[in-house]
Amino acid sequence: MQKITLASGTNVDSIGLGLWKIANDKTASLVRSAIEIGYRHFDAACDYGNEIEAGEGIRLALDDGLVERDQLHITSKLWNTFHRPEHVRMACEKSLADLGLDYLDLYLIHFPIAQKFVPIEKRYPPGWFFDPDAADPKVESDRVPIIDTWRAMESLVTAGLVKEIGVCNFGVSLLRDLINQAEVRPAMLQVEMHPYLTQQKLLRYCHEEKIGVTAFSPLGAQSYFELNMAEQSESLLVHPTVVSIAKEVSRTPAQVLLRWGVQRGTAVVPKSSRVERLQENFDIFDFSLSESQMSQISGLDQGRRFNDPGDFCEAAFNTFYPIYE
Amino acid sequence: MQKITLASGTNVDSIGLGLWKIANDKTASLVRSAIEIGYRHFDAACDYGNEIEAGEGIRLALDDGLVERDQLHITSKLWNTFHRPEHVRMACEKSLADLGLDYLDLYLIHFPIAQKFVPIEKRYPPGWFFDPDAADPKVESDRVPIIDTWRAMESLVTAGLVKEIGVCNFGVSLLRDLINQAEVRPAMLQVEMHPYLTQQKLLRYCHEEKIGVTAFSPLGAQSYFELNMAEQSESLLVHPTVVSIAKEVSRTPAQVLLRWGVQRGTAVVPKSSRVERLQENFDIFDFSLSESQMSQISGLDQGRRFNDPGDFCEAAFNTFYPIYE
Repeated sequence: MQKITLASGTNVDSIGLGLWKIANDKTASLVRSAIEIGYRHFDAACDYGNEIEAGEGIRLALDDGLVERDQLHITSKLWNTFHRPEHVRMACEKSLADLGLDYLDLYLIHFPIAQKFVPIEKRYPPGWFFDPDAADPKVESDRVPIIDTWRAMESLVTAGLVKEIGVCNFGVSLLRDLINQAEVRPAMLQVEMHPYLTQQKLLRYCHEEKIGVTAFSPLGAQSYFELNMAEQSESLLVHPTVVSIAKEVSRTPAQVLLRWGVQRGTAVVPKSSRVERLQENFDIFDFSLSESQMSQISGLDQGRRFNDPGDFCEAAFNTFYPIYE
Repeated sequence: MQKITLASGTNVDSIGLGLWKIANDKTASLVRSAIEIGYRHFDAACDYGNEIEAGEGIRLALDDGLVERDQLHITSKLWNTFHRPEHVRMACEKSLADLGLDYLDLYLIHFPIAQKFVPIEKRYPPGWFFDPDAADPKVESDRVPIIDTWRAMESLVTAGLVKEIGVCNFGVSLLRDLINQAEVRPAMLQVEMHPYLTQQKLLRYCHEEKIGVTAFSPLGAQSYFELNMAEQSESLLVHPTVVSIAKEVSRTPAQVLLRWGVQRGTAVVPKSSRVERLQENFDIFDFSLSESQMSQISGLDQGRRFNDPGDFCEAAFNTFYPIYE
């Protein structure tokens, strides 16, 4: 098992299980199976709507003696509706309660997007719409400076609720401005990364600043077909370069894509709902890609971002909220 | 003359003269000629190294009665080495003194990049290198939060040194986070914009937030050939679509590109060192592009940024300083 080392010295497994879009009724057993296979790194979030079930899976594994809590690395994320400093701790405690944990290893700001507060009693997870029952439902933004949210995140570390904190979906300038103000530096950046969106500069910047990088959607378009956010032709799993390298190393295209991510120093958190896929995704540490294979894959970059609120908030939620341009 | 209206109600001419790379010995007479032609909007900066000469040109025009000061709209920019709050006023006063003005209409943060301070007596304009005489000269960055620089910019407004303030080279998330904290909102964003880098979302965001947008390098690659930052094949002036539309409207390709910029609601600040070009660039208000012509030109977008510190700081200054990824 390869690991990435955070500035604190903490080691995080380079492969984790991403819990986005795993169905509630499958989550508990899948998490338990993943732990049985050897997964120790789990990527959860309030917004994924399955933290209770993920917590059940963890408890099953702990109860069965498959693993100890301190061998696991559990990430959760602060949703957009909880950016106001007075809501951050409550949101974290809700994730902790749902997951059945007394601390998180890592807590991330999910997006550089502050939405209007939605009380937990009203709707949880709150999602994108402020009021989905409104005649013209829309995302309502709030004006919360990132540093205000970050100060509240720092307090969670002090309070012992989380070991480390970080951010998702930040670009390099936003991240630098945060670092320049942080008392507790971001330990991790989680962003979309795959061969169609390599973000070499962002990755290099994070390495230089000793910020760990986790790649979400490391297989590329896979999660976005059913959301109509990608065309079938954009699949990396059938890209001739990837397929040909997979043959060279006698692995599957998915394993090649994950290995590429791991070998360039990122953690990868692919999602799968099937146990055999969990195993396949995990088996990427007994082979390596040559320099030439790595650069052929990196050469596929086309700056293609599948998960862009500037697109999907407009398409799905009728709200214009760009964050990357 | 078309104008863009800032949130304050101030109108700024949609065409201005960009002073970047105009040779010192040509600047004064060129500025005077521009005013004679009808230019009222001038885009200066500490870093362009010709504010003294630009000021001379303005004084010549004022002395000759070609224009009154309050008919002019003069922009200058805070250089990267002056981001610390204690240096902002000094930098602004230096630009004012060089330009021979007692106020600026607009003062912009030139880049979201803070470099180590270089005293005016040591080197002015300071440029990118901290010490160009060092054995291994490099850009030395400083850790100054943008909001700290902004608070000092706000004080310039209060002090009456500048009418309005804004930023350059900010992306949408950085700009939003600034707006969420600003007491004096940014009046203007200046960014690279041309048909190869249309930044539709950024432009739309600024319109919604009532922030004016000025497009620098509105002709695209032109300024970057001699800097080896663009290939000749990247010229927009010979692009078939642009050439063909130019024939349709009986104008030059440059006029079509500038008209496209103006018609989509931005101010454009092309540079020229030749009086006949000044006139050509100015004559874009007696024709218009059809919706189809506008969208054909917008369709040329390829996200091609010529002016990217993430590239040129590495190529020219041996320093990795990405800001856009």
